[in-house]
Amino acid sequence: MLGLDPDPDALWPVAGESSDLARAVQAHCRALIDAAGPACVAVKPQLACFERLGVPGRAVLAAVAEHAREAELLVIADGKRGDVDVTARAYAQSLFGGVETPFGELVGLEADLVTVNPLMGADAVAPFVLAARERGAGVLALVRTSNPGAAQIMDAELAEGGAVWERLARIVRELGREGIGESGLSDVGAVIGATAPDHLSRARELMPHAVFLLPGVGAQGGRVEDLQAAFAPGRAGGLVSASRSIVGAYLKVGGDPAQAARAEAERLRATAWNLGGR
Amino acid sequence: MLGLDPDPDALWPVAGESSDLARAVQAHCRALIDAAGPACVAVKPQLACFERLGVPGRAVLAAVAEHAREAELLVIADGKRGDVDVTARAYAQSLFGGVETPFGELVGLEADLVTVNPLMGADAVAPFVLAARERGAGVLALVRTSNPGAAQIMDAELAEGGAVWERLARIVRELGREGIGESGLSDVGAVIGATAPDHLSRARELMPHAVFLLPGVGAQGGRVEDLQAAFAPGRAGGLVSASRSIVGAYLKVGGDPAQAARAEAERLRATAWNLGGR
Repeated sequence: MLGLDPDPDALWPVAGESSDLARAVQAHCRALIDAAGPACVAVKPQLACFERLGVPGRAVLAAVAEHAREAELLVIADGKRGDVDVTARAYAQSLFGGVETPFGELVGLEADLVTVNPLMGADAVAPFVLAARERGAGVLALVRTSNPGAAQIMDAELAEGGAVWERLARIVRELGREGIGESGLSDVGAVIGATAPDHLSRARELMPHAVFLLPGVGAQGGRVEDLQAAFAPGRAGGLVSASRSIVGAYLKVGGDPAQAARAEAERLRATAWNLGGR
Repeated sequence: MLGLDPDPDALWPVAGESSDLARAVQAHCRALIDAAGPACVAVKPQLACFERLGVPGRAVLAAVAEHAREAELLVIADGKRGDVDVTARAYAQSLFGGVETPFGELVGLEADLVTVNPLMGADAVAPFVLAARERGAGVLALVRTSNPGAAQIMDAELAEGGAVWERLARIVRELGREGIGESGLSDVGAVIGATAPDHLSRARELMPHAVFLLPGVGAQGGRVEDLQAAFAPGRAGGLVSASRSIVGAYLKVGGDPAQAARAEAERLRATAWNLGGR
């Protein structure tokens, strides 16, 4: 799965043709989708990188999402939102299907999946799940992330036994219970850093029906080969996310950015498919 | 402090003059700031409600923030963001002072304070603190929120003793240690729900220099009278946040929305000032 985290200092040369940053970011993301998309099932735009563009940010994000959909890719809006119920509903309206208002319809981003932050508890996540379920979309909640500081809170041991992240995993399982489809996968999944592979078997035990989004492969040090447990329910059980390792592949191997990105995306896909069994 | 959570179904009549939602939201927020602002020290735009507007959302948010600054109010961007370092930096650039790029300067929102989510650990919050400190702004991290589900994770008891929220409080204290100003207040504060007043004394013990943002007064059931411990370092130690109780005051007392909002904001201020001592 292709992470879209456009960095104004590292856009592909194709983007250099425009002197306008918003247009350059859009051209960069389109070229990246065209190059690596065929080896991916989804794109994951990092909302921060589009919000940083300021006023034109949302239009660029919407155009990039539309381009991904035309390439038959799922769109995973990575914003890690979480807030009290009325606010969570507003975020869900923004990222999924919009909302009717006395002034006409507000159009949402039409994301297929969104990432959410469950620190505030199940009631901060439930409005996203309800909005997703209405339209056949899904939610991915942070359970154990890939950054070094993740251990501080998520690995803290609880008095009742187990770690905080295991309690987060139970929230994921509970919220997803009524959303298990014919595939055996639920519409509530989990974000589990690929840099913490030792947590994966336990996570799969706690969340047998969850799709696992596995960020941190490549630039952050995670290796696809270590992620076997994620794919226990089959290929679709794990979504391996890579961004900087794909977009910057040409810096290592030289040559055309698009060709290098496609080769790296195909390599990651082949490795993940081999783990996935069926 | 005035929460700005514009609901398309509950805009003030002044907003009805426009048939365009984005303009109506902007007019509503301006009128609300003009009415209640003089009794407040800050506005707290809820980013979700502006993002929901789609493409024009960021421009409306920027215009509302600018109007608040002209009224000499602080701007607290309430987005509860938190992510790995490179992404946290992008959010900080978006909400604070922007960033230089090869395409020219990206303009940030110029917020005075931003709310952040520390689930991912100190390294997901530190980039916000660094960006804030560079410009004399500040960060407010979620420690114990005001929603019913807050107890699920934040109140969980740790094996080492204490609750998860107390570990979050320690992150706030550590990150804020080098940002304590002459007032005795740090540039890293905490969000503590006004609906959990029994946590406040302990929170003040753990975070003696933190500004406490206290949401949940009014519509969510919290009472200013219960918040005395927050104001232990003086008036500026606590920021009482109210939104729906101010914007919707006229629905209870009748009459002009602006007059009712100002009266309710003044009532809340007087109550908080009485608690604040000096």
